[in-house]
Amino acid sequence: MSDPHSTDIAKAAKSAFEQSQLLSAEERIRALQEIQSELAALKDDILAANQEDLKAAEEEVKAGRMSESLLKRLDLNKGDKWDSMLQGISDVASLPDPTGKLTYASELDDNLELYRISCPIGVLLIIFEARPEVVVNIAALAIKSGNAAILKGGKESNRTADLLARAISSGLSKTALPPTYIQTIQTRSEVASLLALDQYIDLVIPRGSNSLVRNIQNNTRIPVMGHADGLCSVYLDESADLQKAIRVVVDSKTDYPSACNSTETLIVHESLLSTIWPAVGKALLAAGVKLLCDPSTLLAISSLTPQPSNFQTHVSPSDASSYAIEHLDLTLSVVALPSLSAAMEFINQHSSHHTDCIVTESESAASAFCRGIDSAGTFVNASTRFADGFRYGFGTEVGISTGKIHARGPVGLEGLVIYKYVLRSKGADGHIAGEFGTGAGKKQFKHKPIEGTSLPF
Amino acid sequence: MSDPHSTDIAKAAKSAFEQSQLLSAEERIRALQEIQSELAALKDDILAANQEDLKAAEEEVKAGRMSESLLKRLDLNKGDKWDSMLQGISDVASLPDPTGKLTYASELDDNLELYRISCPIGVLLIIFEARPEVVVNIAALAIKSGNAAILKGGKESNRTADLLARAISSGLSKTALPPTYIQTIQTRSEVASLLALDQYIDLVIPRGSNSLVRNIQNNTRIPVMGHADGLCSVYLDESADLQKAIRVVVDSKTDYPSACNSTETLIVHESLLSTIWPAVGKALLAAGVKLLCDPSTLLAISSLTPQPSNFQTHVSPSDASSYAIEHLDLTLSVVALPSLSAAMEFINQHSSHHTDCIVTESESAASAFCRGIDSAGTFVNASTRFADGFRYGFGTEVGISTGKIHARGPVGLEGLVIYKYVLRSKGADGHIAGEFGTGAGKKQFKHKPIEGTSLPF
Repeated sequence: MSDPHSTDIAKAAKSAFEQSQLLSAEERIRALQEIQSELAALKDDILAANQEDLKAAEEEVKAGRMSESLLKRLDLNKGDKWDSMLQGISDVASLPDPTGKLTYASELDDNLELYRISCPIGVLLIIFEARPEVVVNIAALAIKSGNAAILKGGKESNRTADLLARAISSGLSKTALPPTYIQTIQTRSEVASLLALDQYIDLVIPRGSNSLVRNIQNNTRIPVMGHADGLCSVYLDESADLQKAIRVVVDSKTDYPSACNSTETLIVHESLLSTIWPAVGKALLAAGVKLLCDPSTLLAISSLTPQPSNFQTHVSPSDASSYAIEHLDLTLSVVALPSLSAAMEFINQHSSHHTDCIVTESESAASAFCRGIDSAGTFVNASTRFADGFRYGFGTEVGISTGKIHARGPVGLEGLVIYKYVLRSKGADGHIAGEFGTGAGKKQFKHKPIEGTSLPF
Repeated sequence: MSDPHSTDIAKAAKSAFEQSQLLSAEERIRALQEIQSELAALKDDILAANQEDLKAAEEEVKAGRMSESLLKRLDLNKGDKWDSMLQGISDVASLPDPTGKLTYASELDDNLELYRISCPIGVLLIIFEARPEVVVNIAALAIKSGNAAILKGGKESNRTADLLARAISSGLSKTALPPTYIQTIQTRSEVASLLALDQYIDLVIPRGSNSLVRNIQNNTRIPVMGHADGLCSVYLDESADLQKAIRVVVDSKTDYPSACNSTETLIVHESLLSTIWPAVGKALLAAGVKLLCDPSTLLAISSLTPQPSNFQTHVSPSDASSYAIEHLDLTLSVVALPSLSAAMEFINQHSSHHTDCIVTESESAASAFCRGIDSAGTFVNASTRFADGFRYGFGTEVGISTGKIHARGPVGLEGLVIYKYVLRSKGADGHIAGEFGTGAGKKQFKHKPIEGTSLPF
């Protein structure tokens, strides 16, 4: 399965991770500063390479083989993107260290102490889209959290990513961290080889489509923390307030339609078919949103007078598949259902468990929704667009996990650590298990919490 | 991939999980009590079925197709096993509820509050050995943590497990929890079908050999929390104390050799070859341990005078494969290495990352070992046999995770939960994302921690 080249990369990453474990957190912060300086020094070269990537991409767009939005994301010189990228490194450097945190301490016996301490996961393989600044964002998060990383960005940004990677290696070489602490790869075949190397790689983080995430899950034993589709929904409850309904639905759909936290499906309580739904529908049409409606919401919105000017072009019947689509544009699927529980069942079946919202004035409906909806984010009267690491206050994020293991929702530094147990005997003869148990002369465990937060070493 | 029968089981589990989310934690505790009563009422029938399993197993042992130790584990009437099993249910019931815990709360804006709250994972598929009491232990942990579960035990215990499952269903039917909250299956082909159903099953927990765990990882997209081999080791540091070395090594190897936390490899600092190593070797031989030695430890132990009586039968040369074997009996692989860092590199390469121990009087060596060894447990002067949920004080455990994601080491109730974010607007018009950002009239996020521990509902 694995070629020697990929095995070398993976081995080097594991070895870099293991070597780095004896270094202090300060050394990792220093590495971030060195990388920032190297990037600043290489700015002209990097932006020149980015221009080449952009030119090649423009040809692709002209030939109809690439989307305009992908092209826009490639541009590292747009607005304040370059400065934000460098500032992001300082921001990550100044976040609290997620490693070395004591989360449990217990005295098992006189002079026998158990500690649970947060620590890095190990080697991360991170696969992401063609956004060159993400190389730097993710490298910073990996270094800050003490993980070695292998990064693979979209091929359209390869020239830029290559120079960014050189600046990162060059920054690392001025510190005690091995230069192979962060490595970049450029081809899918390298990814395929690395996926077989579960003895060296501890976690794969793919950011992209459902099919990318599923394809990776199908081809590796390594745990996968997937950032896949966001099929988010808003439910208008029986007791929904009209203004809140309009504001939350329109913002959830239109604020940035191509984002994963945009809403794709609107569920309307049947009692609102002739009241709130037509008003919400009118506002959505006014915002240029195309509506795919089930029979009852279609009938209800058809009675709007005067008929909105774009009604004929923007309103059409839905079918069963409409509710399984991440539109990523100004399209919204709409369905009416008879109850909160029917809505919850519908959402649990159709949503990608990213973020779902209820608009309601009822405390009990809000509570039931937040408990009953099995999603990373359950929102009350707030736009699904708030589901984001920056908006949550976590700083930059490595992705938004749609899985249910380890980390869920926006994943920042905390999602990149695990813990280990340290058991320390200070007894004169060490501690052995055979002395504990039931029966004459056997010792009993104390299991007495240790106060304070000091680490064993 | 999946037959209709398995799909029904998985769908029923998911539906049971979703329905249960609106029930209180008290209802789950009541279910545990009802199950306990049902088991007590069915005791005679269950033990009769267990006798049948035992008889069939005895035939297998006679025919050489089953080990004596597997037979022993089948017996539900041995010692206080039955009573402990019932007591275990009460113990789990009385543990603190792992769900509904607030772990983060932040005010994003006036009247916009973000909460992170622990919640169940969803549907667990748990595969374990032929120990019938484990059906009950794991069902209790799943119910207490709010997860639905599908259980598959070793086929040798099928008759017993079937009746235990009936008692569990019968107990559940007296509560508001669906009777399909806990289901049992009996065949490998059902497991194979269920592994394809990642839309319904959220986590697979296989307890067993490395090959079982790898086989499951190779055949599913569902996350796997593996309880695989324990290839634990003890390292005798340059500064090791003689008595601690003897006590810790002998206990780690001999206290219960077939357990996953028993030690399989001893690493000796070269400076101890003519001092501590021969004494430790002598104690191991006296305890009946077979030693597989590398050339230098073999030479050193050969000079013992008088030669231990079992020297000829119990000491032999190791080869490279000796250090990759989980012996699970009174056999220990031994190697001498020139330094702490060489020992750490050796352990990181050979250990299964379960538990590794250093015997040392040096504070700096202990600290380096605990930081540098990438294992769930890093122990100082204490037997690897302490690596266990009960001994750690966590109560009963669902397994010992040798993975590095989600939960590591002994996994109790805390390892069976994840979290969700609840975002609640109390604003008069709800909250929309478009009002935040840079530029005139835009709002800024407050990100102000919310004091206290009260939940939003």
